[in-house]
Amino acid sequence: MAHKIAVLVAGSWGTALSRVLADNGHEVKLWTRNPEQAERINSEHLNEKFLPGALLPEGITATTSMEEAVSDAVAVLFVAPSSAMREVARQAAPHLHKDALVIHATKGFESESLKRMSTVLSEELGRPENRIVVLSGPSHAEEVVNRLPTTIVVASQEISCAESAQDLFMNEAYFRVYTNPDLIGVETSGAIKNIIALGAGLSDGLGFGDNAKAALITRGLAEISRLGAAMGANPLTFAGLAGVGDLIVTCTSRHSRNWRAGSMLSQGLPLAEVLERMGMVVEGVRTTKAAYVLADRYKVEMPITNQLHSVLFEGKSPEQAVGALMGRVRTHEIEEIASASRNKWLNG
Amino acid sequence: MAHKIAVLVAGSWGTALSRVLADNGHEVKLWTRNPEQAERINSEHLNEKFLPGALLPEGITATTSMEEAVSDAVAVLFVAPSSAMREVARQAAPHLHKDALVIHATKGFESESLKRMSTVLSEELGRPENRIVVLSGPSHAEEVVNRLPTTIVVASQEISCAESAQDLFMNEAYFRVYTNPDLIGVETSGAIKNIIALGAGLSDGLGFGDNAKAALITRGLAEISRLGAAMGANPLTFAGLAGVGDLIVTCTSRHSRNWRAGSMLSQGLPLAEVLERMGMVVEGVRTTKAAYVLADRYKVEMPITNQLHSVLFEGKSPEQAVGALMGRVRTHEIEEIASASRNKWLNG
Repeated sequence: MAHKIAVLVAGSWGTALSRVLADNGHEVKLWTRNPEQAERINSEHLNEKFLPGALLPEGITATTSMEEAVSDAVAVLFVAPSSAMREVARQAAPHLHKDALVIHATKGFESESLKRMSTVLSEELGRPENRIVVLSGPSHAEEVVNRLPTTIVVASQEISCAESAQDLFMNEAYFRVYTNPDLIGVETSGAIKNIIALGAGLSDGLGFGDNAKAALITRGLAEISRLGAAMGANPLTFAGLAGVGDLIVTCTSRHSRNWRAGSMLSQGLPLAEVLERMGMVVEGVRTTKAAYVLADRYKVEMPITNQLHSVLFEGKSPEQAVGALMGRVRTHEIEEIASASRNKWLNG
Repeated sequence: MAHKIAVLVAGSWGTALSRVLADNGHEVKLWTRNPEQAERINSEHLNEKFLPGALLPEGITATTSMEEAVSDAVAVLFVAPSSAMREVARQAAPHLHKDALVIHATKGFESESLKRMSTVLSEELGRPENRIVVLSGPSHAEEVVNRLPTTIVVASQEISCAESAQDLFMNEAYFRVYTNPDLIGVETSGAIKNIIALGAGLSDGLGFGDNAKAALITRGLAEISRLGAAMGANPLTFAGLAGVGDLIVTCTSRHSRNWRAGSMLSQGLPLAEVLERMGMVVEGVRTTKAAYVLADRYKVEMPITNQLHSVLFEGKSPEQAVGALMGRVRTHEIEEIASASRNKWLNG
């Protein structure tokens, strides 16, 4: 059945997900603050800045009016950057139908407060967090918009909400959707994984090989699972699409901003210069700071995060950081895994 | 403390692990059937066929005498191909000291019997399986022999045996070793992962992108974890170095034979021709057959394995196989994970 769905905002991921919804027969209202961008999407079906060359289906129309986008929409997909999420939600709130399904696909914590995106949405929209859905998984927007096979997960504590989102997005042609009741796990893994991508760039930049990078991804997965579990996630979620799946895509793609920033850091460039050269937000840098604070708050050991924090903010050399990681005392892999499994999800 | 250690046989992985042991100060006896290979290792410190260009340390000497290699060794490392393991163990058995530590680093099941390597060793050496150690993890031999940072796991049901192996191999310079009590998990994940590498080559060969490959690795990990758990493994082992770590290295390296075979299959070449062009063993092909039989024996659902089996042995086209995987009914990610967690390791 065709539905009206609002997508806020018209970045690359929002636009790619709009294509999926339009391909599934839905009427998509894509909201942007930028009138020229809206005009070009409506007249030429192009969003050149974010997805150059991709011709969008006619089922997508753009608007700068929040009221036009959101009112009567049966579902609203929030894909604003994490730093803008609260403000976008605040603007949408007065127009949102009380039964509209709220979905978000944004990776990251709110700065300073370190709140998850569903908490921000819950506060601004005045609805319970357990009915909010997060969409995540291994998904370059450029591939989705070209209809290459993609598999993602939608999570909500209220599983019927996740299933409603699944019905909107799933198709047999190229977009496969799994449900998961672990909202916290899917949100935290998506937010924290950029730390490991930064580390992967550092490792590659230092001339280490595939063995080191695979170990970094695996050990990184173990430590973000520990933090996630302490925050209330099911550690097994980290073994799924939103966990290791997304981590693999992020760490093995040289297009990743986090990877590139890590690679530059390995050449001895100071952080300020790396950020200036990148000319845009490097989520992994902000996330390293956030995870460092959260690890302390939840009393979780995060050796990779600690070493990256030292390199980014305390002037430690990348070589020394790697040396510190290799030289730790002998360790039992399973003890760490077992400690993560003393968790409500596994002993329910 | 320096020890005499035997390594059987002198392939690329056996030679690379010999270098680690020699770097740690041990006296390594590398056994080979080939007198010319032994001579060249002893006189020129080269094993050209398996690790071209790598100069080996003087602490490694090669021999064709099993008695010379094994007698008085405090530890014996078996790294024969899975098809030769039983015969090599049979030859070593009469010379093995009763207290010698038995370690193996071979990935695969015995053909026909589908026994794990530790079972084969236990039978031929007449010692309990619970004191045998397996060494596994993300580790290209070429990188180890060049002393690039590498992290692996040693597993044994008797943890003191794993710790003894850890002490032999661990160093601060480039080789980090974790212990794990889950022998079965480490052996099965190492053996089965080649199926997924074959699938990754197929996916890349069909022109699918990083999203599809990451999904394949993640969903593949879920299904090999299910089979492993049914065989007695701890599903969490599959989230560790010998599981996802090794899987990442195998699936993202274009040097992998399994990846190349999958890539050729995607071009429509029949299996017989692919195998002829490869000119050597493609473990993933044998393993697909083994896992197909094991999945049936243990009543485990393995959709990716089934589709690969259809492509390899039943003439299904790769495109149809992918279509079948994308088009399955809607699924709950967590149910599958939860079913794997109804397992003695998680409810002990």
